[in-house]
Amino acid sequence: MRYSQLFSKTSRDFPKDEVSSNAQLLIKAGYIYKEMAGAYAYLPLGLRVVEKIKQIVREEMNNIGGQEIIMTALQRKELWEKTDRWDDEKVDVWFKSALKNGTEVGFGWSHEEPISEMMKNYINSYKDLPIYVYQFQTKLRNELRAKSGIMRGREFVMKDMYSYSTTEEAHQKFYDATIDAYLKVFERVGLGDLTFLTFASGGAFTQFSHEFQTITEAGEDTVYLHREKKLAINEEVLTEEVMNQLGVKKDELEQVKTAEVGNIFSFGPTKSNQLGLNYVDEDGSSKPVILGSYGIGITRLMGVLVERFADEKGIIWPEAVAPYKVHLIGLNLEDENVKQKAESVYQVLKKMNVEVLFDDRLDASAGEKFADADLIGIPYRVVISKRTAEKAELKVRAESKSKEVSLEELFEAFK
Amino acid sequence: MRYSQLFSKTSRDFPKDEVSSNAQLLIKAGYIYKEMAGAYAYLPLGLRVVEKIKQIVREEMNNIGGQEIIMTALQRKELWEKTDRWDDEKVDVWFKSALKNGTEVGFGWSHEEPISEMMKNYINSYKDLPIYVYQFQTKLRNELRAKSGIMRGREFVMKDMYSYSTTEEAHQKFYDATIDAYLKVFERVGLGDLTFLTFASGGAFTQFSHEFQTITEAGEDTVYLHREKKLAINEEVLTEEVMNQLGVKKDELEQVKTAEVGNIFSFGPTKSNQLGLNYVDEDGSSKPVILGSYGIGITRLMGVLVERFADEKGIIWPEAVAPYKVHLIGLNLEDENVKQKAESVYQVLKKMNVEVLFDDRLDASAGEKFADADLIGIPYRVVISKRTAEKAELKVRAESKSKEVSLEELFEAFK
Repeated sequence: MRYSQLFSKTSRDFPKDEVSSNAQLLIKAGYIYKEMAGAYAYLPLGLRVVEKIKQIVREEMNNIGGQEIIMTALQRKELWEKTDRWDDEKVDVWFKSALKNGTEVGFGWSHEEPISEMMKNYINSYKDLPIYVYQFQTKLRNELRAKSGIMRGREFVMKDMYSYSTTEEAHQKFYDATIDAYLKVFERVGLGDLTFLTFASGGAFTQFSHEFQTITEAGEDTVYLHREKKLAINEEVLTEEVMNQLGVKKDELEQVKTAEVGNIFSFGPTKSNQLGLNYVDEDGSSKPVILGSYGIGITRLMGVLVERFADEKGIIWPEAVAPYKVHLIGLNLEDENVKQKAESVYQVLKKMNVEVLFDDRLDASAGEKFADADLIGIPYRVVISKRTAEKAELKVRAESKSKEVSLEELFEAFK
Repeated sequence: MRYSQLFSKTSRDFPKDEVSSNAQLLIKAGYIYKEMAGAYAYLPLGLRVVEKIKQIVREEMNNIGGQEIIMTALQRKELWEKTDRWDDEKVDVWFKSALKNGTEVGFGWSHEEPISEMMKNYINSYKDLPIYVYQFQTKLRNELRAKSGIMRGREFVMKDMYSYSTTEEAHQKFYDATIDAYLKVFERVGLGDLTFLTFASGGAFTQFSHEFQTITEAGEDTVYLHREKKLAINEEVLTEEVMNQLGVKKDELEQVKTAEVGNIFSFGPTKSNQLGLNYVDEDGSSKPVILGSYGIGITRLMGVLVERFADEKGIIWPEAVAPYKVHLIGLNLEDENVKQKAESVYQVLKKMNVEVLFDDRLDASAGEKFADADLIGIPYRVVISKRTAEKAELKVRAESKSKEVSLEELFEAFK
């Protein structure tokens, strides 16, 4: 992509009411646009990051047998009444409206109910199970406050997966497989070292649910970390009993601020009983299906990445989620020789299937181009200029020193 | 994909209130699920078709310089008041709700306003233009009736593109390029012969807008077709004057029922004037940006494909949008030899990157498997059974006769 063509240019400004550092950076660098508090549009660079995160999650969910679907935003009142989650007193984030005939409708803030209701069409016998389905859904939540940028919004993209199993044992096996898959996702996006499986409060059915918490000052949660054992305990369940159970001592724990990037939850048969989602077992008896629910906040994850990987100059994307791999800067492009060299490097890299953002602007100074590259945060910066002559300058965004390389070495590096 | 694993099995049933033939077929074949009138979930097979259509559209929009973004569903009242399109008397398809602080919000039924408002951040000078942006957005429209299945819904996926140009001439050039790109899209999805560029009523700014109308009895529109000239006239503008202008005579025109699968529209400077979207021209003067708007109903297109390409047995997908290319049916799989052969064909095709749905069920009869394959409508059916011995049976869904081929010939056919 030629930067001269990209419409979402960098800017020094951001909306006055934007207090979160992730959104400020993403707005300045041209990744997102603020529509209103808690609702952001994703511009070409931002959408590329979202899609890369989604693809990593998709691959890991497919690996454990997940099947991708997409449910609706529109929600039926009668359905949510069955599980007593329609009432605003019970769930305080509903957006609601009405059809022309007066029927109330809601906008999906979660999808356990509609997916489980739908499964009544597809689950009859134990032979139909297990089923694992997931979606990347735009969730709408009427949050009272929305001041955390894309980390907590009124409109955001979430991957939610649901598992339908015959028995508690079968369920537990998939639940554990999901923990592994989630840890792989966070590893792949670059948050492996910073993200911890966290014990949090369960529900009617299990003692614990599990969260995946990433250490960041921008987070809203507090957890107690055991680095060696690679686990954490949410403060809400930090009791002597729980510590004993997990084999940790209070003074081994470190209190840290974190953001929840994923959570997984066992509903057991509870929701199936409410909705009448049963299967006929081998012995002919009818049993409730065991339900699990598994979320990853896709756009939240993007926000956490920005919070964690940035310096005073801008964003520093991990390579796996960067919008482009190489930021190619052409300087002195009014010089026909230099211009041809820069163009040729651009074309060769593109042919090699390397994703390149090519700053080919004629009306921007070297200083502006370097500052923009630092702000945008693409992992590798390559400069072609009069000064680099037959060579190129290669710099890793996260490092301070650049080096001169021959074009051969350059192409070799991106093979 | 193994059909035994796919949760969205075929069924003889569909909801009693479902009167449209596209939705009936798609529900029976396991592509979609009806959440409520006009709102459907897309199951694994259905989502694959949607994504294939999107990818074709994406490629053609990128080819003419489109940049992909995604706007928000949530809409600000003040913005839409500027163009006088907030009032329910003016726009009767709004879903509206309220934030916790009482502020009214709407849910996006169209996005000209927010995208154009956003562009005020990125357009200052003539040097910033042209800009072409598009998105695949889930539109929410509070339709009074929703009886056309996925052809007209309360919630549906639309590709909407917007062009921002300096002059009417520059605008017209892109407008014409979009016509070509749209015709390519409809050609690629298999509707080329059935889809006609149609002259429809313009607005304050131009005499005509253009629609792309596909011939189908399930359509809601009536157009007058000139097959030879490959154009049509919407009945709303069928006057002597228009016919003269287009060089056609009344008795050369054929009245047909059609569904609008795309439309393009010139706003001229109108919306820019309302929103204050101006640019500074070379001579230093401030001018309104010329706006064009270009839609393709993605899920509607899928509905039209089903309406057009089906027989009494089920759907017949054009290859470019089919969820899988090959429907591999294994019969007599209790026979270890046959099973191994079917498995090996499945693995070889997968390795060749051929998309295969493998009916590996042990508890379904040959008759059921054939009926399901016809209902699902994948272009090529391959049967491995005791009877086919060292060969395979290959049948094109759209044709009635099958032929025996050697495995070599089979793999050669899908190279």
